[in-house]
Amino acid sequence: MEVLLQRPWLPVSINGVQLLSKSCFGETEYHILLTDMKCVWEERMESADIEKRAQELNRRLRAPVKAFFSHLSEVVRPALTGSGGGTNISVTQEDGNINMKLKSELAGLPFYWEFHCTPAPVTVVCSQLVRPLLAMSFLLQRQVEQLGGLLGRKDAEIQDYRENGATLSRERLQTEVFEERTYRENFMSKALPLLVSDQSDSLQFDGGLQQLYSAVVSHGNSRKRKLSEEPSVEEMPADEPDITYSLGGSKVDSGAAEEVQLEAAGAKMADRATEKKSLSSAPAERPSAKPKKKKVGLFR
Amino acid sequence: MEVLLQRPWLPVSINGVQLLSKSCFGETEYHILLTDMKCVWEERMESADIEKRAQELNRRLRAPVKAFFSHLSEVVRPALTGSGGGTNISVTQEDGNINMKLKSELAGLPFYWEFHCTPAPVTVVCSQLVRPLLAMSFLLQRQVEQLGGLLGRKDAEIQDYRENGATLSRERLQTEVFEERTYRENFMSKALPLLVSDQSDSLQFDGGLQQLYSAVVSHGNSRKRKLSEEPSVEEMPADEPDITYSLGGSKVDSGAAEEVQLEAAGAKMADRATEKKSLSSAPAERPSAKPKKKKVGLFR
Repeated sequence: MEVLLQRPWLPVSINGVQLLSKSCFGETEYHILLTDMKCVWEERMESADIEKRAQELNRRLRAPVKAFFSHLSEVVRPALTGSGGGTNISVTQEDGNINMKLKSELAGLPFYWEFHCTPAPVTVVCSQLVRPLLAMSFLLQRQVEQLGGLLGRKDAEIQDYRENGATLSRERLQTEVFEERTYRENFMSKALPLLVSDQSDSLQFDGGLQQLYSAVVSHGNSRKRKLSEEPSVEEMPADEPDITYSLGGSKVDSGAAEEVQLEAAGAKMADRATEKKSLSSAPAERPSAKPKKKKVGLFR
Repeated sequence: MEVLLQRPWLPVSINGVQLLSKSCFGETEYHILLTDMKCVWEERMESADIEKRAQELNRRLRAPVKAFFSHLSEVVRPALTGSGGGTNISVTQEDGNINMKLKSELAGLPFYWEFHCTPAPVTVVCSQLVRPLLAMSFLLQRQVEQLGGLLGRKDAEIQDYRENGATLSRERLQTEVFEERTYRENFMSKALPLLVSDQSDSLQFDGGLQQLYSAVVSHGNSRKRKLSEEPSVEEMPADEPDITYSLGGSKVDSGAAEEVQLEAAGAKMADRATEKKSLSSAPAERPSAKPKKKKVGLFR
């Protein structure tokens, strides 16, 4: 979750469906978040689940996850990062979930995969969208106030020049005195109708906001890391019960973060050692009743 | 849900717990949303559920909902709108839910009530927080851009005065040339640490943002009403499947809005006719085995 929080929300078009996406592909794990701003879906899959689903969808597949996961990542990642692809992925909605079905080719045979994304827990929606968006709004509102103040100072400077008899060489350079309230009312009357013409809310999450999102979430994370190294007084349980701090999903989040160790270097080393062996023989826990056939790459 | 969307998120302190709250109390129904920005909880109760819980919590209570609901609203509303009270409400968290227990006095006897708020559906969090906050960020970002542009024009005017030999009578009025990138970097380096000192994220949802929230949600609603009266081309199902539009919670929302009719004038009239009768006699469907005692107001 920690890793995913740092990722930007990328606008993607998967087979014509406009969504925002965040994803994280590890060695043999992935975590996906999708939103159309009306709901947020996620799927988090680890090695064992991926292997199980791959075998259900590809009956003849007997390879361990590592053997086909890099292929899956390669095919899917462009679609989930908005850098192309996705035409071979079909998107359907069932019972409030989003399913993405993929058909590709691996070792000369068809390879099927399905993502089953279900509505994300509210705590995830809060940490990935609500809190960053509120912090962004807060910072932007402060900027608007500051810039209004700066405009006031410019006007004072201009007024002083004028009162001392200065004139403009080009009249078109003259500006109106900035009046914050008038400006805001005028802005809102023009800008609110623009929200209507945006068919997809997600299109509002554009370049400038993406940058700000990144700044806010990286800052929040560096703060969290710092706090976990040397807990500050504010975060320590005090004599007065600070129920607000213990409420909600913060504990859920940190627990979940421990579960997903997508870049675990140790696992990388261990897996590599067993990879070759697993590739060429069926796993011991799934003995085949049929007589052994000639191996076809990853499939049997 | 429609009614609740229009309400602002109010900062409340219920027995020392800092939350943002939205609530809607009807004749014999209520709908509450609470958030600490780490999770969002809700409870929606209608007449029959309220009557059942009231009788479970107050064994001797035999009054219909209308008879005690106005008392409940009066006691609870100040706490849920941040206008005082809340000291007689205890807040606890259990299994990710928030319970608020209230003890007050009604007709000379103790009256107990409990709110059982559970995590809200993701679609509710999206409509009540994510979409408005994104629209707000979008609008504020546009304002920052526009104000930056205005500052550039002020600088051009000032430069023209200066080039024509104008000088300031008071040197302190002189401003630096506005440079958007420098300003933003400077602002972020100073403002991001301020986010740290805010112990509660919800404190960021201050006056200016509240106003903007109201503008955005009222606008979204008037737009929705208009569309349902005369559907525009963009919202109609076209030949090309517009899956994005049909995805997510929009349908859930409109369905839920129909369920909650908090200000139904018809119900008001009908209930008033039966009120007196119900108040003075135990309901027929709950015959008492005990010998009848003298009635104590709303209780028996």
